[in-house]
Amino acid sequence: MLKVHAYATPNSLKVPIALEEMGLDYQLIPVNLRQGEQKTDIFKAMNSNQKVPVLVDRSILEGTDVVLSESAAILVYLAEKSGQLLPKDISLRGKVFEQLFFHASGVSPAFLQAFVIAIQSSPQAEAQARALSEVERVLGVLNHGLKYHRYVAGDTYSIADIAHFGWIWRHQAVGVSLDKFPSVNRWYAEILARPAVVKAIEKTMALAR
Amino acid sequence: MLKVHAYATPNSLKVPIALEEMGLDYQLIPVNLRQGEQKTDIFKAMNSNQKVPVLVDRSILEGTDVVLSESAAILVYLAEKSGQLLPKDISLRGKVFEQLFFHASGVSPAFLQAFVIAIQSSPQAEAQARALSEVERVLGVLNHGLKYHRYVAGDTYSIADIAHFGWIWRHQAVGVSLDKFPSVNRWYAEILARPAVVKAIEKTMALAR
Repeated sequence: MLKVHAYATPNSLKVPIALEEMGLDYQLIPVNLRQGEQKTDIFKAMNSNQKVPVLVDRSILEGTDVVLSESAAILVYLAEKSGQLLPKDISLRGKVFEQLFFHASGVSPAFLQAFVIAIQSSPQAEAQARALSEVERVLGVLNHGLKYHRYVAGDTYSIADIAHFGWIWRHQAVGVSLDKFPSVNRWYAEILARPAVVKAIEKTMALAR
Repeated sequence: MLKVHAYATPNSLKVPIALEEMGLDYQLIPVNLRQGEQKTDIFKAMNSNQKVPVLVDRSILEGTDVVLSESAAILVYLAEKSGQLLPKDISLRGKVFEQLFFHASGVSPAFLQAFVIAIQSSPQAEAQARALSEVERVLGVLNHGLKYHRYVAGDTYSIADIAHFGWIWRHQAVGVSLDKFPSVNRWYAEILARPAVVKAIEKTMALAR
């Protein structure tokens, strides 16, 4: 049984989306960030970086015993385990990794920074403008690619779409509109309507109830 | 022939290190960031995110035609192409991806932020302290792992070591000492002394001359 230690966060959401898309059985275990459960010794033993999500895969018969952090690393692990959502062809595969790392190093820090500022009681106007401008810059890069391809890493749906969706799903909380990015908007609406995504959002949001 | 469009930067350095380690032939092509060459139309056609490095692999006989950005994605591509520095075993492999994404989403943004502040003419003390504290936090996470393992993703040298090395190599420019992190220090000294790393640093620094 795959166990996912997670909370109602953009990075957590990516993992249940992938698991629903792949049709794998899993159990979601809430880590209440508001109560600081990510700082407990038992959680730190799984991830000393103190962040959700963490995947635990103890399939004794298959000889695997994996405890893994970093949402995108979990996506790669699940894709390779299931043989789904990550192309075998070396060129197409390269593009998926390019987008996964563009998400991790560019999109995710930009959205996180803007989110942290947006929820402050009295955000500094200049810092907020700078953060939003970087969010709009990375959305512009994504929009450019999505003009030519249906999905972020080409014409096939992949774990790279799931990675980008995690944070873009929170665009309203960050204070950015997708209207300026018509190709991102078209892609976002398509992903949001996928049955696996609908189910995963419901289960992930329920972790904070 | 593998062509690497790069400059004397931490992210660029990772690619020649991997190529030297793997014994692959390559050509380094300078992209002068000081003169804004990353903003030219010809560069943007390779990477609309306007960042180095970019790998171009046009091996017609092998049927590959790859133009790839994001240093870590390039490392994965080269590891899969050469069959080196990325374990096949699913558990060990998972740990390499965990570290690659921890680098991209945690270590790299922390170092970049601290570096950008450090080179300002009059950095704001509070912002600088906050940035350095995040650099020290991620170094603490790395130090914890390196207490138990020789390399960042286990007991085998991998592309994850190369990824982390890129930015940690610039720790002095960021204003952080590794003395507080003895296991990182031990690991850093070992990587720095590798012949492939020495050669790659020399070639990468020469790009800015």
